[in-house]
Amino acid sequence: MRKGFLQLTAVAEFEAIIARCERITATEVVSTADAVGRTPAADVISPGDLPEFPRSTVDGFAVINSDTHGASESIPLYLDLADDIPVGTKAERPLKSGEAARVVTGGMIPEGADAVVMIEHADLVDEETLEVRRAAARLENLALVGEDVARGAAIVPAGRPLGPFDIGALMGLGILEIEVFKRPAVTVFSTGAEVVEPAQTPAPGKVRDINKYAVAAGVTQAGGVPSLLPTIGDDLDLLTDTIGRSVQNSDMVILSGGSSVGGMDFTEEAINDSGRPGVLVHGLAVKPGKPTIFGMVGDVPVIGLPGHPAGALVIFTIFIAPLIRRIGGNRNAGPFARSISAQITRNIAGSPGKHVYVPAALEFGAPDRPPRAIPILGKSGAVSILTKSDGIIVIDPMREGIEAGTIVEVYLYKTL
Amino acid sequence: MRKGFLQLTAVAEFEAIIARCERITATEVVSTADAVGRTPAADVISPGDLPEFPRSTVDGFAVINSDTHGASESIPLYLDLADDIPVGTKAERPLKSGEAARVVTGGMIPEGADAVVMIEHADLVDEETLEVRRAAARLENLALVGEDVARGAAIVPAGRPLGPFDIGALMGLGILEIEVFKRPAVTVFSTGAEVVEPAQTPAPGKVRDINKYAVAAGVTQAGGVPSLLPTIGDDLDLLTDTIGRSVQNSDMVILSGGSSVGGMDFTEEAINDSGRPGVLVHGLAVKPGKPTIFGMVGDVPVIGLPGHPAGALVIFTIFIAPLIRRIGGNRNAGPFARSISAQITRNIAGSPGKHVYVPAALEFGAPDRPPRAIPILGKSGAVSILTKSDGIIVIDPMREGIEAGTIVEVYLYKTL
Repeated sequence: MRKGFLQLTAVAEFEAIIARCERITATEVVSTADAVGRTPAADVISPGDLPEFPRSTVDGFAVINSDTHGASESIPLYLDLADDIPVGTKAERPLKSGEAARVVTGGMIPEGADAVVMIEHADLVDEETLEVRRAAARLENLALVGEDVARGAAIVPAGRPLGPFDIGALMGLGILEIEVFKRPAVTVFSTGAEVVEPAQTPAPGKVRDINKYAVAAGVTQAGGVPSLLPTIGDDLDLLTDTIGRSVQNSDMVILSGGSSVGGMDFTEEAINDSGRPGVLVHGLAVKPGKPTIFGMVGDVPVIGLPGHPAGALVIFTIFIAPLIRRIGGNRNAGPFARSISAQITRNIAGSPGKHVYVPAALEFGAPDRPPRAIPILGKSGAVSILTKSDGIIVIDPMREGIEAGTIVEVYLYKTL
Repeated sequence: MRKGFLQLTAVAEFEAIIARCERITATEVVSTADAVGRTPAADVISPGDLPEFPRSTVDGFAVINSDTHGASESIPLYLDLADDIPVGTKAERPLKSGEAARVVTGGMIPEGADAVVMIEHADLVDEETLEVRRAAARLENLALVGEDVARGAAIVPAGRPLGPFDIGALMGLGILEIEVFKRPAVTVFSTGAEVVEPAQTPAPGKVRDINKYAVAAGVTQAGGVPSLLPTIGDDLDLLTDTIGRSVQNSDMVILSGGSSVGGMDFTEEAINDSGRPGVLVHGLAVKPGKPTIFGMVGDVPVIGLPGHPAGALVIFTIFIAPLIRRIGGNRNAGPFARSISAQITRNIAGSPGKHVYVPAALEFGAPDRPPRAIPILGKSGAVSILTKSDGIIVIDPMREGIEAGTIVEVYLYKTL
């Protein structure tokens, strides 16, 4: 144990250091139907046209638009009903001038037709004669071949996680498999002689592991696959060896604990001994979360989170989860992608020279009003602060505080 | 095919009808470590105290606070260093007046001590003598037994999906298993003679299924388990039979297609023939998505989505996904839980008497500015409108439109 005067790194500089990490996972081919939330590794190019045939977008009558010119409610026109084309069938017979063909929404339009009169604007006078009461414009109420998606067009871009509709569109084009980035493999473990597994009853002075499981769950939420290792006590050689082996088969290594300066020195030494460039950041100008270590072994980030659960999860949420998403190929990965605007319910104080992270609970009222963000204050290291909160409010270093009633962003660490 | 003059249901009334659905899934016991995102079926009560022993929250020296009264930088006081308590070990020796014991963050505090002096405010003069340069207040820098979480306190409430930190807190209390609501089982299929499976090459006039796969992916995102059935063509008996069997083993049934009035009649008849109360809504005052059917067979919602992919997914996102989350036990389920505030980039028009849903793409700029919401306009039924968008902007029936520059909520249907 020695006194801790660290050279702190400002948040902007930390973000710049993280941004230099260029690692990205390999790719794999998965079934499109199961790919929601996965991130395409390349732009997906349409192998065909959508629609594949000229389709009506309404229930009505396919016509040649010039045949309907002048039609109105007071002066209707009359066309021969030449065909009836049920949905799902081919329109066999080309349309001639003076003719109409019955069509339905999504159904095929006969060759020669260039507009559809909606059923509301036409009536069958008898089985062969259609009264048309409104003029149709060219291409009205129909979709041409490839008008929606043209053969060769990019349907979904690389680097953006697939939503439900993307899945539908890909299936609709017959794309049954898709190349996506693999989920990042993240090794997670705790350090510290006091930490025991949750299944054990801790001896006096010892505590059950919190951080390993909280971080692993956060890795899962960020789209990664956590791999949990046993806790490492005060054993520098084992720590160095574990980091060295983990960086061989992981996209990221996250350890926590060693929040005291002595523990941090230990972690710093082990990361530096594992490979270059080693430790890049040792102490952040933030509160909580100051005793954070960020290093790289080759292109694999190795992160030492604070032992305090609150500090560990705040740093994970704000900085590390977005990096996991980015390593997993998401080009839009930033903490802002998971924030919600809310009105803060009380004054909260900043801290000079530091980014301050204040856990807050969200309370929803009327749908047309912003939710309320209720700051949850409490002692450093308390577990209950975070179980009671939904996300984090950020106060920048130059701000003395935030007044009650201000609209703030809350960076979520749970799905609501 | 007949003309479609429906009695439309307003959104507020539709929401009230949906709210009357009281179905909720059964519960199951799962491993806590794998339970992120799952919803507890009951408040989880702490079986023990956290911390389990009085802990220091800093590196420093445990003292009896009254021994330090009057200590300052200019007039330090001196105490006997009586013990050194490493982290993870029991403090065996009670502290007497005039004594101090070295402690570390997270370490145990000896009996008798009631405050901790931070290492920054004390120095060892020799191996046995501590110089204290600041008075400690009672309970300063320590956490009492049960101060964070008391035995018998509710740690996480029923009905709120578990976040990463909840998982950590539960594990830290030795709660290795947890009772959660089962994921809702949702049967999904399409109807329509024109619809073929994506693996097939559609004959002229036919189209590959889009909606079944888009909706299934949406069900997965909403925490449900989709179960896909083969498409049903123009066969009322088969449709009725399928709905009747599906409501026996599902928490919800979603079919799509039959967007024309004839198709809707078919779906309505099949739902009504399957059981009571049957169809409750047939046509919504919305755009797109008007030809929506909502019914209940017993307490199982049966939903007929429009055949148009855009209408189907909009209705699913705004109304059905929140209902899936609610059936899965999430008490906070509303579309607002997945919305983001953004600045709209162009004027968009409303429609008298209807809720209008406009797909929009989000574009992120500076983190401290709201993202831009770019309305994606296009023909009804187009697939590309939704693949290019991230969510939906809502214009209420009394609003003629929304001006460029306005801050709006975008209801997301994908994770960004």
